[in-house]
Amino acid sequence: MDLIPTAGEFKGREHYYPIRVFYEDTDFTGIVYYANYLRFFERARSSFFRSVGFKHAELWNSEEPIAFAIRSIHLEYMKSAKIDDDLNIVTTYDKIKGARLWVNQSCYRGDELLVTAFSEAACISPEGKPKRAPSWMINQLSQYLLTD
Amino acid sequence: MDLIPTAGEFKGREHYYPIRVFYEDTDFTGIVYYANYLRFFERARSSFFRSVGFKHAELWNSEEPIAFAIRSIHLEYMKSAKIDDDLNIVTTYDKIKGARLWVNQSCYRGDELLVTAFSEAACISPEGKPKRAPSWMINQLSQYLLTD
Amino acid sequence: MDLIPTAGEFKGREHYYPIRVFYEDTDFTGIVYYANYLRFFERARSSFFRSVGFKHAELWNSEEPIAFAIRSIHLEYMKSAKIDDDLNIVTTYDKIKGARLWVNQSCYRGDELLVTAFSEAACISPEGKPKRAPSWMINQLSQYLLTD
Amino acid sequence: MDLIPTAGEFKGREHYYPIRVFYEDTDFTGIVYYANYLRFFERARSSFFRSVGFKHAELWNSEEPIAFAIRSIHLEYMKSAKIDDDLNIVTTYDKIKGARLWVNQSCYRGDELLVTAFSEAACISPEGKPKRAPSWMINQLSQYLLTD
Repeated sequence: MDLIPTAGEFKGREHYYPIRVFYEDTDFTGIVYYANYLRFFERARSSFFRSVGFKHAELWNSEEPIAFAIRSIHLEYMKSAKIDDDLNIVTTYDKIKGARLWVNQSCYRGDELLVTAFSEAACISPEGKPKRAPSWMINQLSQYLLTD
Repeated sequence: MDLIPTAGEFKGREHYYPIRVFYEDTDFTGIVYYANYLRFFERARSSFFRSVGFKHAELWNSEEPIAFAIRSIHLEYMKSAKIDDDLNIVTTYDKIKGARLWVNQSCYRGDELLVTAFSEAACISPEGKPKRAPSWMINQLSQYLLTD
Repeated sequence: MDLIPTAGEFKGREHYYPIRVFYEDTDFTGIVYYANYLRFFERARSSFFRSVGFKHAELWNSEEPIAFAIRSIHLEYMKSAKIDDDLNIVTTYDKIKGARLWVNQSCYRGDELLVTAFSEAACISPEGKPKRAPSWMINQLSQYLLTD
Repeated sequence: MDLIPTAGEFKGREHYYPIRVFYEDTDFTGIVYYANYLRFFERARSSFFRSVGFKHAELWNSEEPIAFAIRSIHLEYMKSAKIDDDLNIVTTYDKIKGARLWVNQSCYRGDELLVTAFSEAACISPEGKPKRAPSWMINQLSQYLLTD
């Protein structure tokens, strides 16, 4: 038997990705440690890409290898998640230009908005230099972008 | 829309839990960092419990609060997982006696066995003292134990 | 023999805290994973407090228990750190008002500025409610604040 | 001003490395999460190597690149560390043979022994294959080995 991890689902241009809070995510004050939401947001961005058809392994091992790095991120923490909470990360990609991508993400517990993140990401080469997103990637992503 | 994170599935007394490898799990040598398998194994043990009907939050906030701590663990790393790999953690509980539980876990990528873990866990009170597993918990777990 | 971990040093109102990059901090692209700078920044804020005379354990176990939670953070990632890099986190506290604290932090490798973080933190009770910083804490911190 | 992170100190063939417990290391039960001791032990092994004269970055970027991977580890958790605790990791290298190294580590809080780890590590190539430790490395390490 082989269970396949979910890559989440699209509802229009919004991508939903479910996450459960485990021991590793919490700290001694009883809530999810602030850095761990960045792990959650990255899992959701990677799952968005996988739902669209990109895998990091293939991008990294291709003839023109690329990966992604965050250039800036702004986070607002409104409420706290706790052990066993079921969360949903909602991700939209705003736009892509050259090597840069703008992403909006929200972490929900049911209807409650817990954390928001607005990030600017960059395509980078293995040497860490910014690198234009390949045109096939832009094409595949374009139908999911909020703005053109 | 609200997606529910999976708690895995039982096949007989074996519990299967799917995990995908993300950026956060890897290190600069290109493989999953050795400590991160312990995070994977804990997610699987927690999901085993949830599948049986226990949530950590309820156990911790009950009148006789308990949590779990690992007393010893033996890990064998045979092969390495990489970014984007889809893994399955297979968990069996061997037996429970007093405050102690014995657990066997294996991390697979398809048919390949990557890592095994044999752990002894303990029920503990909020003060960190060993505490007998409640009888209702033992009853609910008993049908999944490999030995009596 | 017992070595004492450093809590860093003040130079005027700037607090310096040294961090080395280990395996755990990097990802498969060869650089420090973006969430891990938040761990570095928190270590530096905690070490700032310890240098001033506060320990989290004492604050949390006092008669009026408090802890700290980040309400918002803005991060700019300019350059990447790699395995074995020696970093310095420079922290200044801007001001404190009621339950809120404003903090400026920069991560340097020698003279190179790698990452900046501007955060708003809050004093919270164990129930997660905002709680005025105790007056003795404000008094001890006041000489280190950039603005009054 | 530039503070240099400590690489710990040798006392005979025992290497001591100090670690403070931060928010990131704890979980909601108030103690250090079990996987995080593996992070502590790795920092200590890396610091042992740096004290002897090896840096991972240099080994990885050399003409015959090598890194280290753990093949097996046995951990015993006797007592729990908490927020703000000052710990010392004591590391000895038992022996080296071919691509394999045997390491003994203990985590102390003052005189209290909290956790022990006995590991077998392997030198690996970037492709993950076992690779004999270079003779210059064995030479430099030999004076610190417990057995020949």
